[in-house]
Amino acid sequence: MRQPPTRYLILAEGFSADPHYGKTALGVLRYRRNDVVAILDSERAGESDDGVPVVGAVEDALPFAPTTALVGVATQGGRFPPAWIDLLKQCIVNGIDVENGLHVFLADDSELRSLADQHGVVLRDLRRPPADLSTATGANLEVQGTIVLTVGSDCAIGKMTVALELDLEARRRGERSLFVPTGQTGIAIAGWGIAVDAVVADFIAGAAERLVVEGSARGGELLWVEGQGAILHPVYSGVTVGLYHGSAPHLLVLCHEAGRTEIEGAGGGPHPIPPLRELVDLHERLALTVRPARVVAVAVNTRALDEEGARAAVAAAEADTGLPADDPVRFGAGRLVDAVLAARG
Amino acid sequence: MRQPPTRYLILAEGFSADPHYGKTALGVLRYRRNDVVAILDSERAGESDDGVPVVGAVEDALPFAPTTALVGVATQGGRFPPAWIDLLKQCIVNGIDVENGLHVFLADDSELRSLADQHGVVLRDLRRPPADLSTATGANLEVQGTIVLTVGSDCAIGKMTVALELDLEARRRGERSLFVPTGQTGIAIAGWGIAVDAVVADFIAGAAERLVVEGSARGGELLWVEGQGAILHPVYSGVTVGLYHGSAPHLLVLCHEAGRTEIEGAGGGPHPIPPLRELVDLHERLALTVRPARVVAVAVNTRALDEEGARAAVAAAEADTGLPADDPVRFGAGRLVDAVLAARG
Repeated sequence: MRQPPTRYLILAEGFSADPHYGKTALGVLRYRRNDVVAILDSERAGESDDGVPVVGAVEDALPFAPTTALVGVATQGGRFPPAWIDLLKQCIVNGIDVENGLHVFLADDSELRSLADQHGVVLRDLRRPPADLSTATGANLEVQGTIVLTVGSDCAIGKMTVALELDLEARRRGERSLFVPTGQTGIAIAGWGIAVDAVVADFIAGAAERLVVEGSARGGELLWVEGQGAILHPVYSGVTVGLYHGSAPHLLVLCHEAGRTEIEGAGGGPHPIPPLRELVDLHERLALTVRPARVVAVAVNTRALDEEGARAAVAAAEADTGLPADDPVRFGAGRLVDAVLAARG
Repeated sequence: MRQPPTRYLILAEGFSADPHYGKTALGVLRYRRNDVVAILDSERAGESDDGVPVVGAVEDALPFAPTTALVGVATQGGRFPPAWIDLLKQCIVNGIDVENGLHVFLADDSELRSLADQHGVVLRDLRRPPADLSTATGANLEVQGTIVLTVGSDCAIGKMTVALELDLEARRRGERSLFVPTGQTGIAIAGWGIAVDAVVADFIAGAAERLVVEGSARGGELLWVEGQGAILHPVYSGVTVGLYHGSAPHLLVLCHEAGRTEIEGAGGGPHPIPPLRELVDLHERLALTVRPARVVAVAVNTRALDEEGARAAVAAAEADTGLPADDPVRFGAGRLVDAVLAARG
C-alpha cells in the first residue's frame, strides 16, 4: 500500500529571530517545499514564507491538513522546553505524526508515547539508530556503481546541499542517481537513512556501509553520500573518518566555504584550516588501501560574497587545487557533475 | 574510606582451548597478577596457571575469598550463553561483584540486577559509557604535561601493552606517569577509564578529552593514552581518529607487529598495511593544526619471531622510519621511554 504523501507542518515556535529555523526545517523547506503546508510560529502568525502560510497555533494549521509535524529546530542542549511539549501534545491529539531531529528522542518520553499510541500517531526520531547495527563487514566494497562522498574543510558549510544538488543535476541528465542521507536533515528530506553521528562509535563504518548497500538496493548506480564533519575537526573527525571508510567512496567532492580560514565553533582554538590542496592530498592518502579515492572537484560555498567575489573564490579554489571548482547553489551543479562523470570513466 | 583490595576470580569456563581467556582476562592476569586469586574453568579444575589455582565451580573458589568475578572472555556476538548466566548468578548469591567487559551489559538484565540488589553486589559493565558524556570542548588542549598516544598499523597488536610497559618504565624512573585506559581491558587493569568505542559517535573526542583531563587530575604529568584501532582500519578508524584528536597528544608511539602486511579480520580485503614511514607521515599530517603531534618511536611486536628475527625486525623498523624502535615486552621499555623523554624536551 502506498503511503499518502507527507504534508509537513514545520514547528518553528520561538525561532522567528532565526530565519533558518534550524538546519532540518530549512533543508525540508528548501528541498521538499511542495510537501510543506504550514509553518507554526505565533510571533509571525498571518505572514507567509516563500508562499508557505505561517500559523499561530496547531489548531490554525488543521485546515491545511498536515500529516506530520517536523521538529526542525535545534533547541539548547537538544532538550525540549516545556512549551514545546505542549505543542507536541496538541499535534498528537490532532492525529499528526511527529518527526524529530534532535538528540533527545520523543519516543523515550513515556507520556508522549502513550498519548501517541492512544491517538494512533507515529513519533519518528530521525536520529535513532537501527537496533540491529553492527560493525562493517566489507559489503561496502561489493556495491556496484560509483560512490561519491562530499567531504569538507569544516562542519556546516554545505556538504549535504552539495550532495543534494549534484544528485538533482545527475538525475536531470538521466543518471540512476541517488542521494544517501547520513544526518537528520538528509533523512527528513529523503525519507530514509541513518544519522551516523548518533550510532555507537564502533558501528560508524557499519552504519555507513549499510547506507551505501541500501542505496544500491534502492536502484542507485551513482550514490551521493552526504558527508559529515571534517577530517581535521577537533570534535567530529571520528564520525567523518568512520563515514569515509565505511561508505567506501570511489570519488570525493571537497566542500569549502569561501573565506573561512578557521574551523568554527570548536573550543581550544583557533583551529586553522589548511590550504585546500593539502586537504585534497590528505583525504586521498587517508583512503582505504583497498579503495583508493580521488578528489575530483571542489564545491565552493560563496553565500557571503557578491557575484564578483564568488567568481574570484571559485577561481582561487581551482588555482589552489588544480581541480574544477564551482558553487553549485549559485552557479548550477553542471560543472561539478561533469567532473564526477568524467572521473567515473 | 579506602576500598578493600580487589581479589579477582577470572571466569574462563569453556575457554580451556583458548590460552588467552580473551583479552581482558589476559590483561588482568598479566598486569594485576597479584590481585587474581583463582580462575574458574571446570575442564582444568585442579591445575594452576602461572601460580593461580584453577577451580571447577564458584563454590570451590570461595576459600580464596574473591571479591570480584571478571568476565574476560569474548563470547560469540558478545552475548552470554545460558550456562554463563548460571555462573554469574552463583557469583552474585555468594556476594561476589561482577565486572564485565562485553558489549552486552549485565545491569540491563533485570533478573541479574534484582538478584544483585538483593545480595548487595555490584555489576560493573566496563564498557558502559558515562551518562553525562558530551562533545569535546577544547579542555584537552589545556591539560598540563605531556600526552603520549600509542597508535598502530592494525588492531590487536599491543597498543595497550606498549602504553602499560612504557608507563611502568617511566614510573620506575620517578616520572609522574599515568596510563590512561580507553578500552575494557585497560579499564579492568587500571580501575578507571572509558571504553571509547562504546560511546555515541559524536562523543568519541569528548570521551577522550575527559580521559586526559581526568588523567591530569589524577596527578599524571606524563600521560600514556591507550590507542584503539588504526587510522586506515576499514572498521574502526572512526574510533581511532576521534581518540587521536580528542586526546590531543603531543607525541605518538607507532605500534606494529613484525611481519604483518595486512589488516586482519576486516572483510572485503586484503587491506595492505602501508610502509611504516608512510604511516608515520600520515599520522603526523592528521594531527590537529592546533596541536602538532610527532611520532617519536616505533614499538615492534616480535612475539612470532625468534631472538634473531626479533632483532632484525626492530632494525628494519628503524631503517624504514629513521626512528628509535624496540620491542618493549621482549627487550625492555628503556629505549622507547628514552625517545619519548628526549622528545618531551
